[in-house]
Amino acid sequence: MLINRKSPVPIYQQLANGFIKLIREGILKPGYPLPASRTFARLMMINRSTVIATYEELRFQDWVDTIPKKGVFISKQLPILIPVKFENSTEINSYTKKSFPGYFLKFALKGPLPSPTKAYNLIINDGYPDSRIAPLSALINQYKSLMGKPYMDSFFMKGQNGGAKNLRGELASFISKTRAMDIDEENVLVTRGAQSAIYIAARMLLSAGGKVIVADPNYNFANAIFEQFGATLLRVKVDGQGIDVDEIEKICKTGHPDLLYIIPHHHHPTTVTLNAERRIKLLNIIHNYHLPVIEDDYDYDFHYNNRPILPLASADQTGCVIYIGSITKTLTPTIRSGYLIAGKEFILHASRLKEIMELRGDVLMESSLASLYGTGEMEKHINKSVKLYKTRRDIFCDLLTTKLGDMLHFSKPLGGMAIWTTFNDKYSLASISKKIARDGIYMNDGSLYNSQGIEGNSLRLGFASMNESEMHVFIQALRRFK
Amino acid sequence: MLINRKSPVPIYQQLANGFIKLIREGILKPGYPLPASRTFARLMMINRSTVIATYEELRFQDWVDTIPKKGVFISKQLPILIPVKFENSTEINSYTKKSFPGYFLKFALKGPLPSPTKAYNLIINDGYPDSRIAPLSALINQYKSLMGKPYMDSFFMKGQNGGAKNLRGELASFISKTRAMDIDEENVLVTRGAQSAIYIAARMLLSAGGKVIVADPNYNFANAIFEQFGATLLRVKVDGQGIDVDEIEKICKTGHPDLLYIIPHHHHPTTVTLNAERRIKLLNIIHNYHLPVIEDDYDYDFHYNNRPILPLASADQTGCVIYIGSITKTLTPTIRSGYLIAGKEFILHASRLKEIMELRGDVLMESSLASLYGTGEMEKHINKSVKLYKTRRDIFCDLLTTKLGDMLHFSKPLGGMAIWTTFNDKYSLASISKKIARDGIYMNDGSLYNSQGIEGNSLRLGFASMNESEMHVFIQALRRFK
Repeated sequence: MLINRKSPVPIYQQLANGFIKLIREGILKPGYPLPASRTFARLMMINRSTVIATYEELRFQDWVDTIPKKGVFISKQLPILIPVKFENSTEINSYTKKSFPGYFLKFALKGPLPSPTKAYNLIINDGYPDSRIAPLSALINQYKSLMGKPYMDSFFMKGQNGGAKNLRGELASFISKTRAMDIDEENVLVTRGAQSAIYIAARMLLSAGGKVIVADPNYNFANAIFEQFGATLLRVKVDGQGIDVDEIEKICKTGHPDLLYIIPHHHHPTTVTLNAERRIKLLNIIHNYHLPVIEDDYDYDFHYNNRPILPLASADQTGCVIYIGSITKTLTPTIRSGYLIAGKEFILHASRLKEIMELRGDVLMESSLASLYGTGEMEKHINKSVKLYKTRRDIFCDLLTTKLGDMLHFSKPLGGMAIWTTFNDKYSLASISKKIARDGIYMNDGSLYNSQGIEGNSLRLGFASMNESEMHVFIQALRRFK
Repeated sequence: MLINRKSPVPIYQQLANGFIKLIREGILKPGYPLPASRTFARLMMINRSTVIATYEELRFQDWVDTIPKKGVFISKQLPILIPVKFENSTEINSYTKKSFPGYFLKFALKGPLPSPTKAYNLIINDGYPDSRIAPLSALINQYKSLMGKPYMDSFFMKGQNGGAKNLRGELASFISKTRAMDIDEENVLVTRGAQSAIYIAARMLLSAGGKVIVADPNYNFANAIFEQFGATLLRVKVDGQGIDVDEIEKICKTGHPDLLYIIPHHHHPTTVTLNAERRIKLLNIIHNYHLPVIEDDYDYDFHYNNRPILPLASADQTGCVIYIGSITKTLTPTIRSGYLIAGKEFILHASRLKEIMELRGDVLMESSLASLYGTGEMEKHINKSVKLYKTRRDIFCDLLTTKLGDMLHFSKPLGGMAIWTTFNDKYSLASISKKIARDGIYMNDGSLYNSQGIEGNSLRLGFASMNESEMHVFIQALRRFK
């Protein structure tokens, strides 16, 4: 038996495991005496108390019996085992050396396994808010005060799994007010961000072999959800006016789609907004074919030139449109919260699914978020953000045009937090991304937006989270590649 | 057009929606002029600025064109629509009155829909820790200080979706030390509590038509996961020594199971621990049949009479055992955190699945939890809890025996946070639960533990979260039914 003094596993447990292994392999048989603790301690050059702890562990686990004045014996109650040759292994079981047999896996990554990443000084994200301006102190103070309350009360109760009651209520009135929908708290499911709302909605509407109409290009993480449910993607081109709705109608006529996933407001990745003509057509298609729709409206509140366009869900009369929004995109990427709006019964079923998936959400954080809405702090924050991000968009677009105009092109977006930027052919994103990392700057190599094996030379440059000096650092770093 | 002044939807939006509806229905056709704003304002008895806002909204949404000096006209760019008769609805779209067409649903609740619950003074949970003794201040302070940091750095990066790096590291050394497993951070996936770890593991291992061996009775929320994946449950009886492993072997010989879900330590709901003889047999079965296993060890750290029994995962040599634990059960039900331990490749695939489901976890909370482990505060807390809960178990069991001995029976558990209690036939749990609610006390009616349509008269009484005076309130309330 070997002892590894560097292992985090205590020595008495290493020894106990060693004994257990010998017993299990049939080498130490029932009735065999263990060596006297004093002797064994000297043989192994360890403290006698360690040996005693080992034997106690074995006794407690029923591997050995202690017979007073006689000693410690391998238990006779053990089944007489046919010795089984276990594969050679270290004395203690080493998970780091075991791997789960891959042929059992029903889910597996596609493509190369991700490699660990280094730390960066500046990260160009693909459209996130600036945490630095969010009312996080107010949020955390509320969280802390709720945490001090002794009983979490109804949080444990059945029927509460749609999310904290007060947040559902606040969201219902916020959404009614800003998006012209007449909803109440029973139409709201609180989720772990928009992503988990899409997952839940897709689970409700898809089974293996299902068909989903998606834009091309599309938000790749939504495609990944549909594909892992075994669904087929029916891709429909997106141009400067949004998705091609005539093509959607064609598919509806013959293809029996189960679902349409659409981002009509600021499409991801290209940021275009579906124009009015296509909107009407689409509403008619939804009505005529009773087409189930997931409307992902993740950054509705961030529109700069005019008022945002009302969601499809606010005009739809069929109940087929499941509406999804994000609180994460409003506050900070680290607080994962979002919502799903639908008819009452849909929400009840979806709540039950959410309960099965994770029992309940972070009810304290949800309640704390509710108070941000309730005090009006959230609205103030949104107004402040819209002003700031509008300025940042303008500055960033100016910088891109004046300093890098010959490297790349883009259309200035009407809203959102990112610029869909295409680099000219002679500037390879893959190579720039690699080189700029050496300056401590992370910029995606475009692979986040590639689809169907086609490599693009475009990416979303998130401007909302960057202050002016960070923008200059980034632009300067890019200029070096000219 | 009707205006609802009590609606949370602003009047200008109500009007805009009214116009849009008329346009969509073909009643207002392309080219038609809108009434002059002053006239319309008087007709509707509203402020002229509201009408102007309405027209602006319509213009921005491309429904109308403004022709200078002539007025506002329905846009000619709209498609000439065949008028579609929408169902009668209020002027603004009312989600509360729409419901999603049920025949599209691929997932639906079984049984009756949950009804809203009232507030209680005392909630008898089924085995949760006492939040009041948890080091939550330290946790929140850490959380707050992390939140203040400007850039979340590597949190956005690919390859970090297994959970916050520091928590994965801390858990690896904590688990190695306490459970005799030799693992490192790459063997750890951080999840939203044990429930979501079971969900993820099941997703990795099951597809529709799969077969899962489960204990009978079993943790019903695990069964619900397997069933919603379309799997069949193969139920194996649990007695006072744990699950019947001979029966498991029989199934392996002929039934081609895809998975065994087992709670060997403190079985849920009955709290029994699998004895040593059956453990060895089971390890051999896993080895011989390469049987994939989810080992749910949700309250390993809370064992009172002796040291806890080492997990199957610590002795298994095949890599087939996926080990799951809970941080929620250690700290407080409101912080949903848990982990899944497995071979490195399994963790990579599972991390990708988690990313698809929710992009990332609560990285700030995860990092804050890491510092509780790092400073030794978590270990201190566990030691303190074990002492306190042991005392509470003893007091509560004494109270049950001396005050309610003729109403119910139970076996004192060796660990965990709940007593599996069976009420004698003449005391119906369903009726007691209903009546005791009038005293402001929630006690489950046993339905949480029923399986296969069999109604039991047993439930788990969580003692760990109750102080002595709460226990007395509960016992007194129950005594009234004698």
